[in-house]
Amino acid sequence: DEGKHQFTLKTAKETLTGKYGEDSKLIYDLKDQGGELLSLRYDLTVPFARYLAMNKISNIKRYHIAKVYRRDNPAMTRGRYREFYQCDFDIAGQYDPMIPDAECLKIVHEILSELELGDFRIKVNDRRILDGMFAVCGVPDDKFRTICSTVDKLDKMSWEDVRSEMVKEKGLSEEAADQIGQYVSMQGGKDLAERLLQDAKMSQSKQACAGLTDMKLLFSYLELFQVTDKVVFDLSLARGLDYYTGVIYEAILTQNGPAPEAGEKGEEGVSVGSVAGGGRYDGLVGMFDPKGRKVPCVGVSIGIERVFSILEQKAEASAEKVRTTETQVMVASAQKNLLEERLKLTAELWNAGIKAEVMYKKNPKLLSQLQHCEDSGIPLVAILGEQELKDGVVKLRDVHSREEADVLRAELVEEIKKRIADV
Amino acid sequence: DEGKHQFTLKTAKETLTGKYGEDSKLIYDLKDQGGELLSLRYDLTVPFARYLAMNKISNIKRYHIAKVYRRDNPAMTRGRYREFYQCDFDIAGQYDPMIPDAECLKIVHEILSELELGDFRIKVNDRRILDGMFAVCGVPDDKFRTICSTVDKLDKMSWEDVRSEMVKEKGLSEEAADQIGQYVSMQGGKDLAERLLQDAKMSQSKQACAGLTDMKLLFSYLELFQVTDKVVFDLSLARGLDYYTGVIYEAILTQNGPAPEAGEKGEEGVSVGSVAGGGRYDGLVGMFDPKGRKVPCVGVSIGIERVFSILEQKAEASAEKVRTTETQVMVASAQKNLLEERLKLTAELWNAGIKAEVMYKKNPKLLSQLQHCEDSGIPLVAILGEQELKDGVVKLRDVHSREEADVLRAELVEEIKKRIADV
Repeated sequence: DEGKHQFTLKTAKETLTGKYGEDSKLIYDLKDQGGELLSLRYDLTVPFARYLAMNKISNIKRYHIAKVYRRDNPAMTRGRYREFYQCDFDIAGQYDPMIPDAECLKIVHEILSELELGDFRIKVNDRRILDGMFAVCGVPDDKFRTICSTVDKLDKMSWEDVRSEMVKEKGLSEEAADQIGQYVSMQGGKDLAERLLQDAKMSQSKQACAGLTDMKLLFSYLELFQVTDKVVFDLSLARGLDYYTGVIYEAILTQNGPAPEAGEKGEEGVSVGSVAGGGRYDGLVGMFDPKGRKVPCVGVSIGIERVFSILEQKAEASAEKVRTTETQVMVASAQKNLLEERLKLTAELWNAGIKAEVMYKKNPKLLSQLQHCEDSGIPLVAILGEQELKDGVVKLRDVHSREEADVLRAELVEEIKKRIADV
Repeated sequence: DEGKHQFTLKTAKETLTGKYGEDSKLIYDLKDQGGELLSLRYDLTVPFARYLAMNKISNIKRYHIAKVYRRDNPAMTRGRYREFYQCDFDIAGQYDPMIPDAECLKIVHEILSELELGDFRIKVNDRRILDGMFAVCGVPDDKFRTICSTVDKLDKMSWEDVRSEMVKEKGLSEEAADQIGQYVSMQGGKDLAERLLQDAKMSQSKQACAGLTDMKLLFSYLELFQVTDKVVFDLSLARGLDYYTGVIYEAILTQNGPAPEAGEKGEEGVSVGSVAGGGRYDGLVGMFDPKGRKVPCVGVSIGIERVFSILEQKAEASAEKVRTTETQVMVASAQKNLLEERLKLTAELWNAGIKAEVMYKKNPKLLSQLQHCEDSGIPLVAILGEQELKDGVVKLRDVHSREEADVLRAELVEEIKKRIADV
């Protein structure tokens, strides 16, 4: 069975059924030549869980960058496509509570900080806290998932509209909706978890207490990882997917101002949309295992197109050029009939591990060679001429400063490496 | 149009029709929810050509690693799957003859040398030489492609069987087949190209002469690139795909003995199969351009599963362990209740750019932490204990030599970086 070894992109439809809740309508279905109903993968999480089950893997930490498919309306300006990449990181295995969960959040923090996408915030909640909250607010058991989907819309809809959907479309009582409304406006840190553990209503739910105790533990690890500046415990975060069982989180970029201090409901930055999300899914592997053997998992998924679209906008705004090559040096010539010498020098540089490029023309103009370096951000040019060849030197030009210096051929590789290291 | 921006993996069937010759039967067809006939991409070359045409790109050099699909019989032991990765490198643009072609061969040479897969040979031929040869041997024009497909089987079938397929299945005359037989046994280098340019029959074909003149030029560039030790001009190389228009090549691993000297028909190494192939396809982009505007292209495709399967066999044979992580240091502890200290140190190392790992257990056993390092090839362990914390030091252990030394906490990052650089 080929599928045991790698999750095929096309998969039997039933593999995906019942994993995505109300989002299931976006699954991209196909039929193969035999008429079997197939689907394109919707995310990388379900394939990962299936892979663990099929190969009986009980612990692993891995990342995976690949395409996923959603039968949604594309919106290209916002970086939303029907076919797009996800970049997932997951930790699977039976471990002590919240340690891998904290590592996932540390990784999101590190990635978003290093990409310099602007200020961001990571909202954290827990499915058990949500379920406990629904229970103590009087939501009937069979309405938990659908009410959860409605709460998930709070980042796009006002509370009034969310409340109205709960009451009018989903048949929830007004009292229950209003009680939910009080909780989902709460944001904070470890102290909010502590306060809710004392809350008269919330503390009646065992599930909520388990989630809140873990939330406290999570924040203590996040303090050690020095990432609490961006992480907010937010009771309005729901996330639609059915498979989450514990911690859930979502990273959003905020256009202005820092995230509020933990525990304080500050001036909120304007959200420019979610760039990463994830959570704990302890039941998914068991759904694929013939014996129902469970493997607890926690993971995060980053939307790369989204990130790229922001980086490109930033580059455009600053009139900065985005480098599309890693070429370090262009081997050029000012005179005719030096193609062979150019090729020879290029091969010398390649063999020395230098990223070199040469124009595929017999007699390119020096100006067009230099222009190409300017356009594509190549920092150095090694220029050959009859005189240089006689003297055993190469003219090394700095594209930015336009300074040129003769370098002994035997010392060229060293000199280029030095110049690159200096940059 | 979303497809303009990225080649979707699923594509209208007609995009692929007429590009792959007799291999078209392996195209993986699908129907979408609307009933439209789609196919999964067969290779990365056709999608690349379509991308250039749709975006009006007239020159580009790029690599692409991604999955392709063939409705073939899988053979896992030989690294052959229905879904597999290809790693493609292509140069598109109007340039002087054979310069980008030579670069592609240099890249194949470099990759196969650096991977240390064992000895290899790169066979080179030219579609124009093949077509010219077919013409002067008396193959009717409308049989060129199908006879070419049969010649392509020479790496798997004996000449007798190939001859028999030409004559009995494809209706070629015995005389034409025998004349082809004489040519396809020829192997050599630049000198063979020169000899064939003087060949009474071959020199009658303008096409063959154009191909042979370019072959001479190619070899002169390959000499400058210092790769002629592995490249052989081989008239039996055909490659089945319809889209090639000029140079074609294929890299094979040879189990024993070096490739024959150019111009000399030496003792042949046993082929263990093709690991890379490619060629020039100057007409493909024009097939997708509404105005038929052509963009000449040359490229190479490497079969990664094949390469991995060989590397894994090699590793197994030498009982070497293939490292599956890049972790440089494990943060461990010999005593209980030091989880927080371990997490804190791990974050310190992460923040300093060191690849560190920590066990997700409150109180893991020292032995299991060390065993994990042995198993996964992590070279260093930073061990914390009550005494070390008091003294402001960390015990740094070399997993291989088992030597341990106390390192001042403030100097730990420097010391780890030094140790890693030494390895």
